[in-house]
Amino acid sequence: MNSSIGIWVEEIRSGNVRALSRAITAVENRTADSHELLRLLFAHSGRSRVVGLTGSPGAGKSTLVDALAGQYRKREQTVGIIAIDPTSPFTGGAILGDRIRMQSHTGDAGTFIRSMATRGALGGLSSTTADVAMVMDASGRDLVLIETVGVGQDEVDIVRLADITIVILVPGMGDDVQSIKAGIMEIADIFVINKADREGAERVEREIKAMQSLSMRHDNWVPPVVKTVAYTGAGVPELATAIDDYETFLDSSELGRQRRIANWRNRLREMLRDEVLRRIVEGAFSEEAVGVYAAQVAGHERDPYSLIEEIVGKLGRQEPQC
Amino acid sequence: MNSSIGIWVEEIRSGNVRALSRAITAVENRTADSHELLRLLFAHSGRSRVVGLTGSPGAGKSTLVDALAGQYRKREQTVGIIAIDPTSPFTGGAILGDRIRMQSHTGDAGTFIRSMATRGALGGLSSTTADVAMVMDASGRDLVLIETVGVGQDEVDIVRLADITIVILVPGMGDDVQSIKAGIMEIADIFVINKADREGAERVEREIKAMQSLSMRHDNWVPPVVKTVAYTGAGVPELATAIDDYETFLDSSELGRQRRIANWRNRLREMLRDEVLRRIVEGAFSEEAVGVYAAQVAGHERDPYSLIEEIVGKLGRQEPQC
Repeated sequence: MNSSIGIWVEEIRSGNVRALSRAITAVENRTADSHELLRLLFAHSGRSRVVGLTGSPGAGKSTLVDALAGQYRKREQTVGIIAIDPTSPFTGGAILGDRIRMQSHTGDAGTFIRSMATRGALGGLSSTTADVAMVMDASGRDLVLIETVGVGQDEVDIVRLADITIVILVPGMGDDVQSIKAGIMEIADIFVINKADREGAERVEREIKAMQSLSMRHDNWVPPVVKTVAYTGAGVPELATAIDDYETFLDSSELGRQRRIANWRNRLREMLRDEVLRRIVEGAFSEEAVGVYAAQVAGHERDPYSLIEEIVGKLGRQEPQC
Repeated sequence: MNSSIGIWVEEIRSGNVRALSRAITAVENRTADSHELLRLLFAHSGRSRVVGLTGSPGAGKSTLVDALAGQYRKREQTVGIIAIDPTSPFTGGAILGDRIRMQSHTGDAGTFIRSMATRGALGGLSSTTADVAMVMDASGRDLVLIETVGVGQDEVDIVRLADITIVILVPGMGDDVQSIKAGIMEIADIFVINKADREGAERVEREIKAMQSLSMRHDNWVPPVVKTVAYTGAGVPELATAIDDYETFLDSSELGRQRRIANWRNRLREMLRDEVLRRIVEGAFSEEAVGVYAAQVAGHERDPYSLIEEIVGKLGRQEPQC
């Protein structure tokens, strides 16, 4: 074991915010020492409650996360927030946009906020997010909130990392609200109708209840519907209570453990995929080679299906060492 | 070559809708003969114009795609539509929801509509979508429209498959509109402000123009902003003209070819990743084994980082055959 990494781990565990911040950067960038760091921190993780929040754009997720963090701070609990930002596929940088709203927590060491960018398709965003959540967990945060923008498969993968998933809806989202709700219906442990002072909140609630009456979850939990107005704080204590209730429900049964095992099933597959990709595929497919192949396929000189078969065939073959 | 597949290819090319439908199902399910089918069809592809459309939920994408398809039918062009539906991560089925709106085309063989489900993280949705688009292309469709719900990385990957990308915005999307627009700003070849009869359309247009004034695309194309009211058809002819203009721009330069090469770069990587995953990872990671590992990690008996390293180490090692 590298002893400087050991010291770093102790700094993180003692609540040193700079050490925590540096660790997250290392994990995001997959630096040489991040692997050892993660391995050591893992032993100290598993104590936080991890809450995932998702919903459509415009649902006011950031404001709600902000208010919820404030609620937990009143209970003297420490909070870590991971905010997933949409990224331009061209520049690779994070769009910081509404993160500015989070500045209300500036100066409170009890709330640690980290924005993360959506990376390219090869990046394994949900794996990185899970690693960052684990680092926050090992640093002793009582609560880790993961906030995503959007309702795509990426977001579903991310919120499924959490112990508790909250789906945020708003009144008057238009024609597609039906299909959104259907897509995320089964991942919600708690529904929030934010901006509940707007016209149409009752209708959204009725629609959720109508859907719930059609199908029961495997575990028989009926996700409660909490109405909030995040920017005034209305309904936020009730949301914290709903989270407590679901946690009690999880703890009272085997379900919490089963959910963590199911999450690890998915995550181990993703980690293996990422690692195989990094070691094997990127080695076989240099920037130069892929450029040549892409031009051949784009020019219809070569079909991509036979090409991939050929490359994979070569990957499997190895010269015997004798 | 399997001669029955040869006959199938000819049926698809002659415009037989049943043969086309059966081919797409084979590709989606990765049946044993789908690989040979794709290989043969590829030689006949490359003639369609592929247009990707994305935007936030509630932007009225389906209605707009519907109207645009109608516009091209008036020009006697044939259209294929691929609608990506959000999927429940639990059931794996497609949520058909608003696909019902598409029924206006029922009975017109010139418009072929296919809904596709978002699959699990291992599924390679954008690869499958690209294959389905290629099959529609080989079947002789003049135009292939790919419609996605949401603005996540998945959606970005999918619309980037297209020759032309259209980003659909609506007035009054709320607080997050800034961050959404920033994330997709650079992938749009054409902006549409749908529901432009609503209050705020001018403001959205001003915001797009303000963003455009801050940064210029590499190719110096300034994406036009087209205002539509999809359900009345207003602005739809203008959108078709904007698509024509961009196509002319692409054809007048090397840009169209460069874009196709860039797309193939991404796609070949993804195809290689999927194939390696299928052959190597799934073999090494049976349902049973992953269940045992997941329980060990969830119980903190084992750290996942060392575990993956160990498994990948075993994958690379092979017994010499002598």
